[in-house]
Amino acid sequence: MFELKNSEHESPLPSTATMEEKLRQFEHLTRFSQILNSTLDPDLVREKALEATCALLGCETASLLLVDFKTGELYWETALGEKGKELKKSVRLPINDRSIAGYVTMTGESLLLNDVESDPRHFKQDKKFRTRTMICIPLKAKNRVIGVLQALNKTAATPARKSQHAWADFDADDLRLFETLGHQVAIAVENSHLYAQLKKSFYDTVEALAEAIEKKDRYTGGHTKRVVYYSMCIAKYLDIPPDEIDRVKLAAILHDVGKIGIEDKILKKAAPLDSDEWPVMKQHPNLGYEIMQHVDGIKDVITAVRCHHERWDGTGYPFGLKENEIPLIASIISVADTYDAMVSTRPYRKGMPPKAAYEEILRNRGTQFSPIVVDAFIQAFQKEKMGKQF
Amino acid sequence: MFELKNSEHESPLPSTATMEEKLRQFEHLTRFSQILNSTLDPDLVREKALEATCALLGCETASLLLVDFKTGELYWETALGEKGKELKKSVRLPINDRSIAGYVTMTGESLLLNDVESDPRHFKQDKKFRTRTMICIPLKAKNRVIGVLQALNKTAATPARKSQHAWADFDADDLRLFETLGHQVAIAVENSHLYAQLKKSFYDTVEALAEAIEKKDRYTGGHTKRVVYYSMCIAKYLDIPPDEIDRVKLAAILHDVGKIGIEDKILKKAAPLDSDEWPVMKQHPNLGYEIMQHVDGIKDVITAVRCHHERWDGTGYPFGLKENEIPLIASIISVADTYDAMVSTRPYRKGMPPKAAYEEILRNRGTQFSPIVVDAFIQAFQKEKMGKQF
Repeated sequence: MFELKNSEHESPLPSTATMEEKLRQFEHLTRFSQILNSTLDPDLVREKALEATCALLGCETASLLLVDFKTGELYWETALGEKGKELKKSVRLPINDRSIAGYVTMTGESLLLNDVESDPRHFKQDKKFRTRTMICIPLKAKNRVIGVLQALNKTAATPARKSQHAWADFDADDLRLFETLGHQVAIAVENSHLYAQLKKSFYDTVEALAEAIEKKDRYTGGHTKRVVYYSMCIAKYLDIPPDEIDRVKLAAILHDVGKIGIEDKILKKAAPLDSDEWPVMKQHPNLGYEIMQHVDGIKDVITAVRCHHERWDGTGYPFGLKENEIPLIASIISVADTYDAMVSTRPYRKGMPPKAAYEEILRNRGTQFSPIVVDAFIQAFQKEKMGKQF
Repeated sequence: MFELKNSEHESPLPSTATMEEKLRQFEHLTRFSQILNSTLDPDLVREKALEATCALLGCETASLLLVDFKTGELYWETALGEKGKELKKSVRLPINDRSIAGYVTMTGESLLLNDVESDPRHFKQDKKFRTRTMICIPLKAKNRVIGVLQALNKTAATPARKSQHAWADFDADDLRLFETLGHQVAIAVENSHLYAQLKKSFYDTVEALAEAIEKKDRYTGGHTKRVVYYSMCIAKYLDIPPDEIDRVKLAAILHDVGKIGIEDKILKKAAPLDSDEWPVMKQHPNLGYEIMQHVDGIKDVITAVRCHHERWDGTGYPFGLKENEIPLIASIISVADTYDAMVSTRPYRKGMPPKAAYEEILRNRGTQFSPIVVDAFIQAFQKEKMGKQF
C-alpha cells in the first residue's frame, strides 16, 4: 500500500490510490466552496478562507493579505491557526519583489518555497514564529490581483509524538489544489467586498441627505450622526442578529427625515414650541412614514421611524402604542434620541451633563422607555463612553 | 475498455474508469462553481446555472423555478437549451403535491423520474415539448427552499444520427452530482438576490428622500422620477457598461438634492426668477456636491450632480466646463432634465408638446448638449415612447 501512495513517482495514468486522494480533495474543495460563498460578510469569508486552507493543505497556519488600492500597499488582513494569532495585523508591505507577498502580488504568479528562511524575500514578522515551508498564491478577481493567500508549514500526516508537529514539504499537487481553492476565495472575497461597499454607499448617501434635511433646523446640527452612534452602542448590548443591527442603523439615520415637511417657522423656532405648534411638530414621524412608505425592502425601518415617539406606557404618539406593541428598533431610537436631546444645548437652554441625562433615562425606565432597552443603555453608557464621544 | 465504463455494475471499490469519470465531473463542478459565483447579476447567475446543468448532466434542456414568497407560488424564471425558449415564463404553480416542482418545493426532497409522462404530477406546459426524463432538485438557502432546478431529457453519448438525440435514463450518480451543483446554484442565486435587493432598497430610499426634497418646489412634482426615466432611456442607446448605467440612475435621482439649500421664496416662486434670484438658484449643483462630498463610494455620481448644468460649448455653470471635460453622466442628465423642464407646465407657462421639445433638443446639439448624447436621445425618443410615459 505504501508504494501506491507515493505521489512523487506519479505515472501519466495515476494509480487508484492517487485518484482516491484527488477525489477526496475535490469533495473537500466543493464543500469549502459552499461554505466560503454562503456568507457576504467580509470578516467571515476571510476566516473561512483560512480555515479551508489549513484543512485542505494540512498546514500549521495560513494568512491573508489584501491590496489597499488607495495606498498601493498590502496589509495583513487575517491570520489563523495555532500560531496565527501571533502575527501582527498592522504591518503593511509595498508591492515589489522585496517580499514574498509583494512579489506574488506584483507578478500574479504563485511561489512554492520549502526552505522559506533561506529566501532573501522572507519577511520575518514575528521572532517567535518560524516559517519553514510556504505556498503563496495570488487572489485574482476581475483581472487584477486583490491580495495573496499563504499556506504556512505543511505538517506530516503522522507526527513522531502526539504533542509535536512533524514537518513535510509542499509539492506540485498541493500547489495546484491551493490555486483551485484560491479562485473560490478570490470570488468570495470580492463578492463580500462588493456587498459591503454597496451597503456603505447606501448608508452614507442616506445619512448625507438626512443631515441636509436636518440642517434646516440649525440647532440640532449633528443630531442624526449622534443618534446613529448612540443607537448602535445600545444595540450592541441587546441580543439581536447582524441584519437587525443594520435596520437599527438605517432607522436611526432616517428617524427625523419627516421634518422636511414641517414649516421653517416651527422647525427653526428659537424658543420652546407653544400649544398650536406642538401638534404640527408631532406630525414628523408620520411624515417620515409617508415619504418612504413605497420603499419595499425596508418596511421594518419605516415602521420604526413612524414609532420612535411612542412611549412604553402608551402615552406617546402617533398611535399611543404600548409596551411590546412598539417595535424594538423604535424603542432603541427613542432612548438614543431623548438622550441626545437632553445633552444638547438649545438657544433657550443649556444641555444637561451626560451623567444627569443618564439618570433621567433610568428614572423613566418602564414609563417612557422599554426596560430592556434601558438596561442595554446602562451597559452602553458605562462601557462605550457615550458621554465623551462628541 | 467498454466493460470498465459500465457504471451500472459499480462495485463498492469503484473501478479506475469510474473514478476518472468522477474526477472529471468534480473538475467541471469546480469550474461551474467559479463561473456561477463570478457575478452578482441575478439574470446572469440563472443563465449560468442552466448552462452548467446541461453541460454537467448531458441533458437536452434545463429550467429554474423560484418561489415568490409574497404569493407563495412558484414561477418559471428561466429555461434554456435547444427547446428551452419554448417554455412559457408566465406560468405560476402553487406549492403542493399536484406538480413535480410543487412537490419538490414542499417536501425539500429531489425527484428522479425516468418516465415523466406517466407521472400524474407532470404538468404539460407546452404541447410541442416532450419531457421524457427529469431530475428536479430543491434549491435551499438559509434553511428554506427558494426554488427548484430541473434537468430535462438526458441524452445518450452517441446519437444514432447526427441530427437526432438518443435518449438515456438519469441514474443515482446524476442525482448526487446534480444535488452538489444545486448547493452552489442556491448560494449564487441567493447572493445575487441579496445584492439586487440591497441595490433596490438603496435607490428606492434615496429616490424617496430626493422626491421629498423636490416637493418643497410644488411645481415640479414627479420631476425626479421623470429625469431618472429619461436618463435611463438615453443611457440604453449609449455603449456603456451596467455599473455605469447604475451611476447614471443614482446621479439622476440625486441631481437636484442641492435645492434643499435654496430658500423657499426663490424655490417656490410662481413666476420666472429675476436677475437677483438666478445666481442663488444656480448654486444648487454645488450645494448638492457639498451635501454628498464625504460619501466615499459614489464620487463619479457626485461629480455628475455638480456638473449637470454645464453646457457643451462651455457657457454653463458652475465651472464653464467644455465638451469632453464634462462627465458623460452629467451630459445625459442635462438632456433629460432640460427635456422634462420643457414639456412640464409651470404656473406662468404651459408645457411644450413632446415633439416640439424634441426638436429643441436637436437644435441645441453641439451647443448646449453633447452630440453623442443627443444622438442617443433621438433613438430613445423614437423607440422608447418617451413622450407618452407620463
